[in-house]
Amino acid sequence: VINEPEAPNLSQMIDFAQVEDVLHRAASAAAAVTLPFFRTPLAVENKWTRGFDPVTQADKQAETAVREIIAAAFPDHGIIGEEWAPKATQSAFNWIVDPIDGTRAFISGVPVWGTLIGLTHEGRAVAGLMAQPFTGEVFVSLPDKAEYLHGGKAMPLRTSPVTDLSAAKLTTTTPDLFRMPEVQPVWDAFWPQVLQTRYGLDCYGYCLLALGQIDLVVEAGLKDVDIAPLIPIIENAGGVITTWDGGRAEAGGNCLASANPQLHRKALAALQSR
Amino acid sequence: VINEPEAPNLSQMIDFAQVEDVLHRAASAAAAVTLPFFRTPLAVENKWTRGFDPVTQADKQAETAVREIIAAAFPDHGIIGEEWAPKATQSAFNWIVDPIDGTRAFISGVPVWGTLIGLTHEGRAVAGLMAQPFTGEVFVSLPDKAEYLHGGKAMPLRTSPVTDLSAAKLTTTTPDLFRMPEVQPVWDAFWPQVLQTRYGLDCYGYCLLALGQIDLVVEAGLKDVDIAPLIPIIENAGGVITTWDGGRAEAGGNCLASANPQLHRKALAALQSR
Repeated sequence: VINEPEAPNLSQMIDFAQVEDVLHRAASAAAAVTLPFFRTPLAVENKWTRGFDPVTQADKQAETAVREIIAAAFPDHGIIGEEWAPKATQSAFNWIVDPIDGTRAFISGVPVWGTLIGLTHEGRAVAGLMAQPFTGEVFVSLPDKAEYLHGGKAMPLRTSPVTDLSAAKLTTTTPDLFRMPEVQPVWDAFWPQVLQTRYGLDCYGYCLLALGQIDLVVEAGLKDVDIAPLIPIIENAGGVITTWDGGRAEAGGNCLASANPQLHRKALAALQSR
Repeated sequence: VINEPEAPNLSQMIDFAQVEDVLHRAASAAAAVTLPFFRTPLAVENKWTRGFDPVTQADKQAETAVREIIAAAFPDHGIIGEEWAPKATQSAFNWIVDPIDGTRAFISGVPVWGTLIGLTHEGRAVAGLMAQPFTGEVFVSLPDKAEYLHGGKAMPLRTSPVTDLSAAKLTTTTPDLFRMPEVQPVWDAFWPQVLQTRYGLDCYGYCLLALGQIDLVVEAGLKDVDIAPLIPIIENAGGVITTWDGGRAEAGGNCLASANPQLHRKALAALQSR
């Protein structure tokens, strides 16, 4: 998984040491904006007319800070963010930014939200970072590594060896994700097959999968910014992530992440059996 | 709430400075056991025959460590714990211990589990502590205070001023709690009335309520050790916690915690309207 055929070519096109530096500096800049807002009263806007999707001032300011650092380092790259209009360029490289993935966790004081920053090349995720500033955790992946940083220490990310659904720990953000006619019956048939189902983790769930603590993440209706930065973290830790029909997950939609290819085959089959 | 009529008498019966010291020392002793197990492979036992209720080695060893500290300081007090048989005495004081509340969160690597230690007098909770060792957070209450400790700083706990259900942020551990015939319809009618529902927090949800970040916690089928240590934290932060029929919550069962008395009245009425 780590040494895919295209990786050598990519390294001639871009300096991944610089990419890594930008990921970390951008995450720090985002944290400097988000942390002072965490667990304080916030001006919450309503993004949706039909529901409650809080978008905070912290969200917008953090994305601005991240964009400035990316644009200064890679001025010709495109940038796609959760909060502001896309910066389209001629480059095959695009940065994907979700300054606060899990804004509902954020406004509820739960430290499982994260800042997501990823890099795609011709639409394929090649590097990514998730940072949780309150716990001080960083999950980062580049073509040659996937690392967990905490308390001044770095350790390699490695997914679990669980290969059976009946032994798998599953997480998803909320059962509300599946309240769509074409999705609800699939979810209802799937979750009773696993050992344990937990809710409420947003991006943190995928990172716990990369850390070997969670075996499956099943979600529906994701946006590109929700998932693209997490793909290299999952894949370079030994995991697999695809859409429910087995395709690449960079564009979001209904996604399945698994700790290893064997478990992924079984989980995909179970999702597709209806 | 803080100065209840019985408090002056209680202070003549027990040294609350010693209680506070024991709470903190016991939590530290528990953390020394639990943290080295967190996010490592664990010997998981099955406590239930019908379901999956993981109880770890960490759970049992941590309770032993807590019991030793309590017994040394207050040898005549009773101790009721999650993992070992109760220590019954003639004392009106009983300590309530749940070494790892949220063992499913624990074995999934999610830092929202906690060590709960509480003190009851004639069945009424009078002091309590919740500690989350990975984030380094401690929530503690004695008759004259409710405090949040993090990063070497202490701040008073204070619940939110939200008084309307439609503006309230609700949390509960999992929707699976409500899968009982007499409970499911109550929950199904209740949760759509609030602003936002989140799952997956265990004891951490009650502490976020005390911190003013969550407005309501609704749970069903709790045990005494799940809730008694949290009651003083909630009450001395300005919140209210009762069973769904408005009684004291020390024995567990179906419980409702609210940020303030006005919100509690509305939430109780909504729960009882069916």
